[in-house]
Amino acid sequence: MLDTVGMQQFFEPRSVAIIGASTKPGKVGHDILRNMLTSGFGGEVHPINPHAEEILGRKCHPRVTEVEGDVDLAVIVVPSAAVLSVMRDCGEKGIGAAIVISAGFKEAGAEGLERERELGKLARKLGIRVVGPNCLGVMSTSTGLNATFAAGMPKRGNVSLMSQSGALATAIIDWSIQQGVGYSKFVSFGNGVDVGVVDLLRAWEDDEETKVIVAYIEGLSNGPEFMAAARRVSEKKPIIVVKSGGTEAGARAVSSHTGSLAGSEHAYNAAFMQSGVIRAHSMEELFDLAVAFAYQATPRGRSVGIVTNAGGPGIMATDAVERDGLRLASLDQETIRALREQLPEAANFYNPIDVLGDADADRYTYAAGHLLKDPNVDGVIAVVTPQAMTHPDETAEGVARVASQSQKPVLACFMGGSAMEEALEVLNEQHVPVYLYPERAVHSLARMAEYQEWLEEPPDEYIRVVPYTQGVQSVFKAARAEGRVNLGEIEAREVLKAYGLRIPESYLAQSAEEAAQHAEKIGFPVVMKIISPDILHKSDIGGVRIGIRDRQEAVDAYDLMMLRVQRYAPDAFLRGVFVQELIQTGREVIVGSTRDPQFGPLVMFGLGGIYVEVLRDVSFRIAPLGKRHARRMIDETRSAALLRGARGEKPSDIDAIVDTLLVVSQLVTDFPEILEMDINPLKVGEAGEGAVAVDARITISEEEPVVGG
Amino acid sequence: MLDTVGMQQFFEPRSVAIIGASTKPGKVGHDILRNMLTSGFGGEVHPINPHAEEILGRKCHPRVTEVEGDVDLAVIVVPSAAVLSVMRDCGEKGIGAAIVISAGFKEAGAEGLERERELGKLARKLGIRVVGPNCLGVMSTSTGLNATFAAGMPKRGNVSLMSQSGALATAIIDWSIQQGVGYSKFVSFGNGVDVGVVDLLRAWEDDEETKVIVAYIEGLSNGPEFMAAARRVSEKKPIIVVKSGGTEAGARAVSSHTGSLAGSEHAYNAAFMQSGVIRAHSMEELFDLAVAFAYQATPRGRSVGIVTNAGGPGIMATDAVERDGLRLASLDQETIRALREQLPEAANFYNPIDVLGDADADRYTYAAGHLLKDPNVDGVIAVVTPQAMTHPDETAEGVARVASQSQKPVLACFMGGSAMEEALEVLNEQHVPVYLYPERAVHSLARMAEYQEWLEEPPDEYIRVVPYTQGVQSVFKAARAEGRVNLGEIEAREVLKAYGLRIPESYLAQSAEEAAQHAEKIGFPVVMKIISPDILHKSDIGGVRIGIRDRQEAVDAYDLMMLRVQRYAPDAFLRGVFVQELIQTGREVIVGSTRDPQFGPLVMFGLGGIYVEVLRDVSFRIAPLGKRHARRMIDETRSAALLRGARGEKPSDIDAIVDTLLVVSQLVTDFPEILEMDINPLKVGEAGEGAVAVDARITISEEEPVVGG
Repeated sequence: MLDTVGMQQFFEPRSVAIIGASTKPGKVGHDILRNMLTSGFGGEVHPINPHAEEILGRKCHPRVTEVEGDVDLAVIVVPSAAVLSVMRDCGEKGIGAAIVISAGFKEAGAEGLERERELGKLARKLGIRVVGPNCLGVMSTSTGLNATFAAGMPKRGNVSLMSQSGALATAIIDWSIQQGVGYSKFVSFGNGVDVGVVDLLRAWEDDEETKVIVAYIEGLSNGPEFMAAARRVSEKKPIIVVKSGGTEAGARAVSSHTGSLAGSEHAYNAAFMQSGVIRAHSMEELFDLAVAFAYQATPRGRSVGIVTNAGGPGIMATDAVERDGLRLASLDQETIRALREQLPEAANFYNPIDVLGDADADRYTYAAGHLLKDPNVDGVIAVVTPQAMTHPDETAEGVARVASQSQKPVLACFMGGSAMEEALEVLNEQHVPVYLYPERAVHSLARMAEYQEWLEEPPDEYIRVVPYTQGVQSVFKAARAEGRVNLGEIEAREVLKAYGLRIPESYLAQSAEEAAQHAEKIGFPVVMKIISPDILHKSDIGGVRIGIRDRQEAVDAYDLMMLRVQRYAPDAFLRGVFVQELIQTGREVIVGSTRDPQFGPLVMFGLGGIYVEVLRDVSFRIAPLGKRHARRMIDETRSAALLRGARGEKPSDIDAIVDTLLVVSQLVTDFPEILEMDINPLKVGEAGEGAVAVDARITISEEEPVVGG
Repeated sequence: MLDTVGMQQFFEPRSVAIIGASTKPGKVGHDILRNMLTSGFGGEVHPINPHAEEILGRKCHPRVTEVEGDVDLAVIVVPSAAVLSVMRDCGEKGIGAAIVISAGFKEAGAEGLERERELGKLARKLGIRVVGPNCLGVMSTSTGLNATFAAGMPKRGNVSLMSQSGALATAIIDWSIQQGVGYSKFVSFGNGVDVGVVDLLRAWEDDEETKVIVAYIEGLSNGPEFMAAARRVSEKKPIIVVKSGGTEAGARAVSSHTGSLAGSEHAYNAAFMQSGVIRAHSMEELFDLAVAFAYQATPRGRSVGIVTNAGGPGIMATDAVERDGLRLASLDQETIRALREQLPEAANFYNPIDVLGDADADRYTYAAGHLLKDPNVDGVIAVVTPQAMTHPDETAEGVARVASQSQKPVLACFMGGSAMEEALEVLNEQHVPVYLYPERAVHSLARMAEYQEWLEEPPDEYIRVVPYTQGVQSVFKAARAEGRVNLGEIEAREVLKAYGLRIPESYLAQSAEEAAQHAEKIGFPVVMKIISPDILHKSDIGGVRIGIRDRQEAVDAYDLMMLRVQRYAPDAFLRGVFVQELIQTGREVIVGSTRDPQFGPLVMFGLGGIYVEVLRDVSFRIAPLGKRHARRMIDETRSAALLRGARGEKPSDIDAIVDTLLVVSQLVTDFPEILEMDINPLKVGEAGEGAVAVDARITISEEEPVVGG
């Protein structure tokens, strides 16, 4: 909560000092002061400049320490070399919050990076919250605070925006002013030495003036903290994020399938999905969604009513409905009756309702109103083209009126140019989101429906097994003692066993006779494998035999393996021969995990063999993982249809896969030293038969992780 | 060529009659006359109205037959019931072209449909070309002809547009005026009783005023004619199409895999792909592309240079480059040297070039110019945000200047609102396409690169085998004689054999001894199958045996099959038992065909089993098919990786699949009575080993098709 208190000074300061205020118009230090003085800010504003008496009619102080009375917020615009000393002044003055506009920090090479580190250290020491450096600044429309050097300020509204890029923030402001979109708070946090995404999420979580949070980010520094905050905030208001920057080439070599398939894009997508964050894939989508969520309620379901005054755009909207996973509402008889009563005979009374090109505002509004009242309709798309009898502005008034009387969302699409200008203004003023193209209106409604579904989900079930932790620890310890980080299959299976996963019955034999006895105990057929840390490709020297059918074959196999090892790898250290139950039936899937630098352990699922290796048909979630997301991971793969029993086959035991995903999620969460792991294959039986981890590999870190670090 | 002569009268008439001209402003018949008189049209304009002396200062005639001198074009705005008689007047007057604005035809029920049929018949009889009915009309900016009732006319330009929807046309006009986009010709063809997409493509094919053709369509009536025209025109100028309307539920029941997987969307996509048509998926994309192609040359390759004055949007553009299949150009040393010379040290000299937020127009233009000169760069994306030192209009001037000096395309993205307005005007006037979002600029460039690649493709190779046509005919005849349209596997294989496809060696046996002899001749192991038109599910009664290993097994299998038939299907007509070579190795793929109502035979490819049935991983082309498209069909499937030799396996004989696709394409083209067929599986050996059509089914039409019909 201290965080939030600290953050408030950025938006509601009583007194602001502009340190580095300039007398010269066009200079950043002048523009900020001017913005602070002309945006309706009610508090005190103190320009600080040792070389001026006054600027823009305000008395100037040489240092912030010399201002009389308290200062809540410092806006720092001095050259980067002077920022630290100015910060010390702020500390002396007891200022709790600073916006460092100045550039010349980590974006500017090694020296700048060092300066930024010092700035961070100093801020923590002095207890000053810092926005920036290298940023555009902060706005709050409700207090009239405009501590930026942008050329204007959007009108008051209920969208709050954070941006990692100052330039993009400038573009957004410019545009929002033109489009008449209102904002509540606006923070360009630049390099983010202190205040970042998580602080702002927390600050806006309970902010009554913020209905929608939008963010442009290029990266996150603390994934788990972000997810925790985002998940909580998303339940109160939508968070819409544009995350730019593609998959970077992995920094460390990967040794597992999971490792080679995972990328930071997968991690970000999973993190957003798991925390209810709505990812927009362009600034255009960000704006479309921001306005939709800011202006309208979310739909209670996916059934859409379309009203149009032209066939073509109606078809386009219908196409979009199908593409975006919405559905055309099947209208209630009462609605159809009401439409028939007032609409001309040639109109279309079924969804999409076509009120015809000669419809006036009354006819259009009548149809839109009845659609909204239909119990089968969750939201309405209102499409208008500029036809002969169309009065777009009156139609807009009508649409806005029925929209305001309904709890259901109405999104409009008024297609045209100058003929539509007035209508757009009317709709925007009355908070009906309006788009130029039907596809964008429909897509926005679809994303709203998705968010609503997320809101309605019950909490996910997080199930934990009681593991034999010591067993795992001793496996890791033993491997490290031998200088190994790649666990062999015996060791890996030991770990899985400690977490209660079913593994094939198996024993190590050190003589042919012992092998035969083990095989008899397990029951034929069995698998036999040479076990040696020095022999990587067992099959190449005949070190794997599958389907040994009787005692004699077991004895022969053992002897042959010994012979071959002597011949081809005489120096290899040999642990013995592994005799293992042969899991003959079941479908092969892979469950794996890798560690993402931002988000930590990432769990992967895919069907075995070609589905993973060739088709790359896999899905990811961030651990820890609940039951619902485990099930969705499976459903998200195209090949999941095979598990559900395609082509007349019996369905596989999907519950057993879910359980395995949850166990792996727990394992990699419990042991951060597991860098990568694959269970490949996990053989899954028919429904109710369970699953067996036939083979596995685990890579651990060289060092034991510091607990609580 | 007659067609084209007829079409010219729509765009360059010397004399136009407005039949149904009205004295009342707001009436369509008045608005059209007003538009004709105020748009700078140089020819004569004659209002026709029996109840008026003059309208808008023009002498009015009661009938068009009473106008002195020739009339080239009639614009008909009378009530639908009067249209036919007015058309007869036009015929009497010798008018060659008519635009029927009037509604009340096929869009208005059965009576209207009948009226439309008569209109079509009459027009053909009188030799009058007709645009409409139920349309907005025609514009030609070069002659100042505005025979529409739209509220304005776009400026002159080199985009020609056709629209099946009048409402959408109205929206497009309104918008184009606002955006300053220029058009050459504009046709809303409404119900299209006569003039349609193909006529307009032909009319604009060699029109020097048309550089880009854009079209909004909801359907096509003659697929093959469209493809032929589109393919030819696409080689001269880009055709950009929005096709709305999703997949309709198939009208007839389907009996093959191919039939169940094909849909009109597949057919349209294939048709567009095979004829060079650029499909836009929304009106927004249509506009983006129209402007890009109208203003700039297409890039010679996929290497993009990005210049930006801000990091964030540069990253977004880079993301889009990767997503859209373009690549970031690796800059020439000379370019980097030149940039280092003039740009500040903190700038980024590698692609994307960041000239920094304080860049003035000169610095920005310098960088853009050097990027354009770089031999490794095929096209440039110029991103500008409104930062402190930015003068967007000057920067726009600079960008336009270097763009005009280069043969390479430049697409701009100026992000912002009012700060960018002037710059947008400058760019638009100087024909640099400009977008609000980097993604849209990049996407447009990508589609341009695709089109350029299509242009550079050598002609596809169409290879024909010499088939044993009579053999196919007699199979079809025999089946029809028995009242069957579903060919059994023997018959279907007979057809494939007639086209030179390899099928397993096989013989029909009518005794156990004969079966054994056939099997010995073929060589063990063999397959044996009961052949009876009355037994559909052979396996259910043990009627299929795979892998018969010796003479005795063959004899046993025969006797057992006879026993089972007697027991379970005593009344079945039995042809005998088929003894067949067992194709043991090879990968299973499916090659099939179905018939699309618009485009005719559609050829399908997919990997066998789950890849088709569960993953629906298939591709389609319209027959006849060339080698390149056959190869692409294979490449388009995700599972094609398996054929190329994934996971250390040897590559499959892809050439043999290509050959099979070409043969099937030829077969279904030669025999239009083949409604559906599947070769399933086609077993494909390793490279060089060929492919064998192991099983097949064919459905033919009940009636023999009329040749030349």
